[in-house]
Amino acid sequence: MSPATFDEIAIIGIGLIGSSLARAARETGAATKVSLYDANEEVRSTASRLGLGHVCDDLKSVCQSADCVLLCVPVGAIEATMQEIAPYLKPASIITDVGSVKESALTAMQAHCPAHVHLIPGHPIAGTEKSGPEAGFASLFRGAWHILTPIPKQGEAYNGAVDRLAAFWERLGARVEIMDAARHDRVLAITSHLPHLIAYNIVSTAYDMESVGEGEVVKYSAGGFRDFTRIAASDPTMWRDVFLNNKDAVLETLGRFSEDLAALQRAIRWGDGDTLMREFERARGIRKAIIEAGQDTDETNFGRNTPDKND
Amino acid sequence: MSPATFDEIAIIGIGLIGSSLARAARETGAATKVSLYDANEEVRSTASRLGLGHVCDDLKSVCQSADCVLLCVPVGAIEATMQEIAPYLKPASIITDVGSVKESALTAMQAHCPAHVHLIPGHPIAGTEKSGPEAGFASLFRGAWHILTPIPKQGEAYNGAVDRLAAFWERLGARVEIMDAARHDRVLAITSHLPHLIAYNIVSTAYDMESVGEGEVVKYSAGGFRDFTRIAASDPTMWRDVFLNNKDAVLETLGRFSEDLAALQRAIRWGDGDTLMREFERARGIRKAIIEAGQDTDETNFGRNTPDKND
Repeated sequence: MSPATFDEIAIIGIGLIGSSLARAARETGAATKVSLYDANEEVRSTASRLGLGHVCDDLKSVCQSADCVLLCVPVGAIEATMQEIAPYLKPASIITDVGSVKESALTAMQAHCPAHVHLIPGHPIAGTEKSGPEAGFASLFRGAWHILTPIPKQGEAYNGAVDRLAAFWERLGARVEIMDAARHDRVLAITSHLPHLIAYNIVSTAYDMESVGEGEVVKYSAGGFRDFTRIAASDPTMWRDVFLNNKDAVLETLGRFSEDLAALQRAIRWGDGDTLMREFERARGIRKAIIEAGQDTDETNFGRNTPDKND
Repeated sequence: MSPATFDEIAIIGIGLIGSSLARAARETGAATKVSLYDANEEVRSTASRLGLGHVCDDLKSVCQSADCVLLCVPVGAIEATMQEIAPYLKPASIITDVGSVKESALTAMQAHCPAHVHLIPGHPIAGTEKSGPEAGFASLFRGAWHILTPIPKQGEAYNGAVDRLAAFWERLGARVEIMDAARHDRVLAITSHLPHLIAYNIVSTAYDMESVGEGEVVKYSAGGFRDFTRIAASDPTMWRDVFLNNKDAVLETLGRFSEDLAALQRAIRWGDGDTLMREFERARGIRKAIIEAGQDTDETNFGRNTPDKND
């Protein structure tokens, strides 16, 4: 195995992402030592029991000797955590995060980051609808994009740190992309944040339908609804923070979505089959592009409801 | 193998559902002879090549000796097809369909159905995002619900025909449920029709975002968007007909969806984290109910994006 990218990493927040990181870093040898901390004592016990690494009982112990500190807490908890760990960070160490919103994460971290530390925000485009330390797995980042949004014009040492952090993520199997934080937030608003909001909303709407018993919604969910409930099973705290912290881009995207939906609604009301057909054909084309780009498989029925496989 | 439920069935429309039916009926021995017809000559050739059954070149040949005729055409084509085949239907035979909307399908078929034939509309809650004769597979209906919406108060012979058609679908592996046509249309509006409309719409919105290149939407689609594009890859003709034929229930459901979405939008705009949290927690509960009801697996990441499986 080639030498580790970092002698010691500190993972703060041991949820799906944090625990996957710990597993992946050890499995790939990307870090010699993995220290972990979570504000929740029960989560720390679980992490110890799972053997995820060196579990610490306070923030000072977890990060004082780390070459790279990875904040894996919800976006809304980044600022407070950063403020607490600031005094303990090692000179020339790297501090990064995994938040789904990058402008506000940058602002939150910059407010308390010591000058002798390299602050490089990041976001892995990877996850599942599960949460918690037991939900993680080492291959989560394999083949997934990892977006870094470094601060521009920081000089040689900083650029070297960016390269090193990129190498770390690539070692976990990720494909690293450098992007401007504001652009990241606009792109993710449509590819991730809006889809989650819509999924949560349609599940709530279904729940409230007076004319349809909850039992029937569940019973006949295979018709399409089921796929939305999967997305809507994602961690509520994480997603609340995403929407509160990427407000402008989400509201802009949501406005466009609602306008487009109103046009489809009008087409249905007036029996305008041509408009429906044109829109549906266009959507199908995007699906084709995603498969061609290797971002998904073309397996029949989402690869999951042929009873042969799931029985 | 126990005796066939029908000596001969006729499948009209050889798409995903029709071709799956042919395969399943032969594999399970539910029908001794399977005759097929499609208005498209190329589709008929493909069906012959695939060995799906006795492929006929006209509607008279396909249904004149059938004990059960299954209309597997889009909802919008049901009436014209029914009108054409009406003169050829065998006395005491069964005519059914697989359309996703049941009130309009019933009306369309009733308009031309001879009195000596048992008309029993039906809808299999099964499908994939693929279409065409090559997309079908024999296990498609296994474990899936099949809803029959028989005409009330039709007497002994009719009830016997309903039992026989139910036995046929059960033999293909489906779980049969009897339901009122209007109720079916309201339930499916929320569990299937609205989710498809939303999926088509979000994909269109993404496509039009001026600030985000199409390449980036595709590239970072793993964040949630990808799941919508799968649903949006479904057959455009079939879905256009669904929306035009279940207009009232879809518009009612869509109205509620938009109201609920406006409430979430307001919560985001005003930074109301408590409302977001409450709604997201609630949605997560429905997901749990679906898994407990056995309507989906709880497999990590939709069972599909761990590279170990898809590589």
